[in-house]
Parts: sequence; C-alpha cells; structure tokens
Amino acid sequence: MRIDIISVLPELLESPLNHSIMKRAKDKGLLEIHIHHLRQWAVNEYGQVDDYQYGGGAGMVMMPEPLANAIEALSKDVGYDEIIYMTPDGEDFSQGMANQFSMKERLLIICGHYKGIDQRIRDHFVTREVSIGNYVLSGGELAAAVVVDAIGRLLPGVLNNETSALFDSFQDNLLAPPVYTRPADFRGWKVPDILLSGDLKKIEEWRYEQAVQRTTERKPDLLKD
Amino acid sequence: MRIDIISVLPELLESPLNHSIMKRAKDKGLLEIHIHHLRQWAVNEYGQVDDYQYGGGAGMVMMPEPLANAIEALSKDVGYDEIIYMTPDGEDFSQGMANQFSMKERLLIICGHYKGIDQRIRDHFVTREVSIGNYVLSGGELAAAVVVDAIGRLLPGVLNNETSALFDSFQDNLLAPPVYTRPADFRGWKVPDILLSGDLKKIEEWRYEQAVQRTTERKPDLLKD
Repeated sequence: MRIDIISVLPELLESPLNHSIMKRAKDKGLLEIHIHHLRQWAVNEYGQVDDYQYGGGAGMVMMPEPLANAIEALSKDVGYDEIIYMTPDGEDFSQGMANQFSMKERLLIICGHYKGIDQRIRDHFVTREVSIGNYVLSGGELAAAVVVDAIGRLLPGVLNNETSALFDSFQDNLLAPPVYTRPADFRGWKVPDILLSGDLKKIEEWRYEQAVQRTTERKPDLLKD
Repeated sequence: MRIDIISVLPELLESPLNHSIMKRAKDKGLLEIHIHHLRQWAVNEYGQVDDYQYGGGAGMVMMPEPLANAIEALSKDVGYDEIIYMTPDGEDFSQGMANQFSMKERLLIICGHYKGIDQRIRDHFVTREVSIGNYVLSGGELAAAVVVDAIGRLLPGVLNNETSALFDSFQDNLLAPPVYTRPADFRGWKVPDILLSGDLKKIEEWRYEQAVQRTTERKPDLLKD
C-alpha cells in the first residue's frame, strides 16, 4: 500500500510515521509513505501557498492553485483510489473506515492548515472528507498521522500477532473487555477470579459479557450499527 | 499550563509537540510539556513494564506497578487537576472538553500501548478516560498529541490572532462555513459573489447560513447540544 501526504508542515509528521509499528510496516515493505511539501507548488518565489480569505475575517486560506497543481502532478504519477481531505466537518473516521481504507492500494491525504483549503479544491478534487473527531487541531497533520496509523496496523503482516487486531475494540462493534496482568494481587486490588480459573470457555463468556456491558454503558451507539 | 505525559514510546511525541503552534506555545512560556519514559519505573533491570494478560489471549498488558509508581512520584512533585488515560473506550474528546481542559493548571496524560493498561490503574488512579474517536491506534501517543494540540491552541496568547480560534468549527456548536481565497476565478470556478460584495453584514449572514446548513447536513448532532 502507498500513502501520499501533502502538507505545509511535513516536519510534524516525522516522528509519528517513523517509529514503532509504522516503522515496522515500512521496513517490511508493506506500507510506503511519501510526504510532499506543498511549497514545491507555491505560486511565487516566496513560497506562497496561502492568502487572506474573501469576505474578510481572521485566518489564512490555502490557495487553490498550489493544491490543484500538487494533486494533478501526483495523480499523474501515482493514480489514487481516494483523495482525502482532513477536516473537522468531514465524515467521522471510524474503525470501519480504517478497514475499508486498508484495502485500497493508493491514498492521497491533504492536510489543511490555517482556516483550511479553498472550497473549490474540496468541490472539484477531493473524493473523501474525513474528520477524526469533533475538535479543532492546529493542522491536518496529526489527523493524517492518526488515519495512517489506524490503517497501517491493519495491513496483514504489520502486527506481530495476526490475532491481536481482531480482538481490538470496535472490530465487532464492541469495546474491549478489561485486561489484567501480574501481580494477581496488587496493593490488595485483585484480578477477577475467573481470569485465574484456567477455564477458557468461561473466560471467553466473561470477556464477551464485559465487552457488551462496557459498550452499553459507554458507547451504546456502536450496538446500533 | 503544564502537561505531563507518561509513555513507553516517547520518541513518537517528538515532532508533533516541538513544531509550529505547540513550539510557539512552549517558547512563549504558555505551555510546559514534560514527557516521561515509563521504563524509569520498570519492575526489573530489563526495563519490563508489560506482561501477558491473565486469562490468556494475544497482546501484552501494561503492568500496574510501574504505572502506579510513576503516577505517585509525579503527583507528589506536581499535583494534577486530572489524570487522563487515552483509550478507545473513554469519553469522546470534543471541543467542549478541550475548552475545559485548557482552563486547568496541570494535567497528566497516560498513553496506553499493546492491549492497554491493567484495569486496576484505571479503577484507582485515573480520573478521566478519554477517546479521540471510534478507532484503534497502535498506542496512546498520537491520541495524547491530538489532545495537547487541541488544548494548546486555545491557551490565550498562543494563536497570533486571538479571534482566529473563536471562529473555528464547534466553538458555537456550528461547523465553519466554506472559505475562499485568490484568485476569484480559478479555472472557471468562481468565488461566490457575496464574498466579493464588500457588504460585511450580508457576508456575515451568508456565513452563518452556510455554517448552519453544513452542520445540519454533516453533523446534525452538534445542533442538539
């Protein structure tokens, strides 16, 4: 899989995409990540990629021309299944969307900054608008890193133990049950007896009940899907 | 404001918290971020902080002892308003929560990894469990970076233009209206006439209508709050 990212602050993406599981995915050749500095397609020698917004008001807007040229140049070379714009008013990113994206071959992700990108780029180039949650970040870079991480760990062969991702929260619309490790008694707080029983069938039942209970209490909407 | 973060992969946090707006917040002395490697509180000389989960199954669990010792040592030195655990089954992070957190003095954020942290730490030490969305990441670090970024940009004096954050999405439970910048005609795609009219009152009305329309179409739940 190949993911391209267009950003005005590519340095923000360095450490999240070059350590741990993302590094492993890249080292194994399972995930190729290319980060492109938008200033390559700036409109003048000063590297300009943003300008004041029409109608007045605080905050700069990313200009249509550099973005259109960047998207066209990269699309010609690579060809994308989706051109994704990270924006708080996009479709909610979810584990289901991560699963879908993980089955694509080539994704292009555009990181907004300042007040966002010119609406005409959204209207004429972007194929998916994605939000990682109902909050505002200083740019799309962290949001892009979140999406790449969520997708990357689902690629077959990336996680050491293939079964590990299958029992994560959300994979069956349930949150994960509580987990415990040693010691069995920590400061008088004990691990539930059932987990020490060795009865795998009962443990499985208990975990399922706990997962359903936790989901009902904390994210009941998941059960409706 | 001071934010402490406990992590087993502190290198993931380097670039997101040391560039752009977070860097500005730190340089201005408005935000102090301390990242603590959990291995300082490992249970043995091999740096062990995780172990197999009771009851069997794939994936390691972060042990209670190192976390309890870390939280107690840091709390004694600093004293926290909230001890936050980043977890997919936590309370949904939102702009409202970012606003609340931005008014605190001292936050401690615990990043989970592997299958998560021992439930007893959640039961006895954590005061808030926070999820940035319904998806699974390879660790809590990116989630912590998202929370710190969302909070940091709200601190007075961090953004250059104080009014900029006020007109972001969510600040009044509305998504932001579309934005446009030069040129007014790009490949035949034109900026709406109203934005070029110079009539500030009409522009304000148009933006409000667009914001309401976009919120109704894309995130109707925001309007219910």
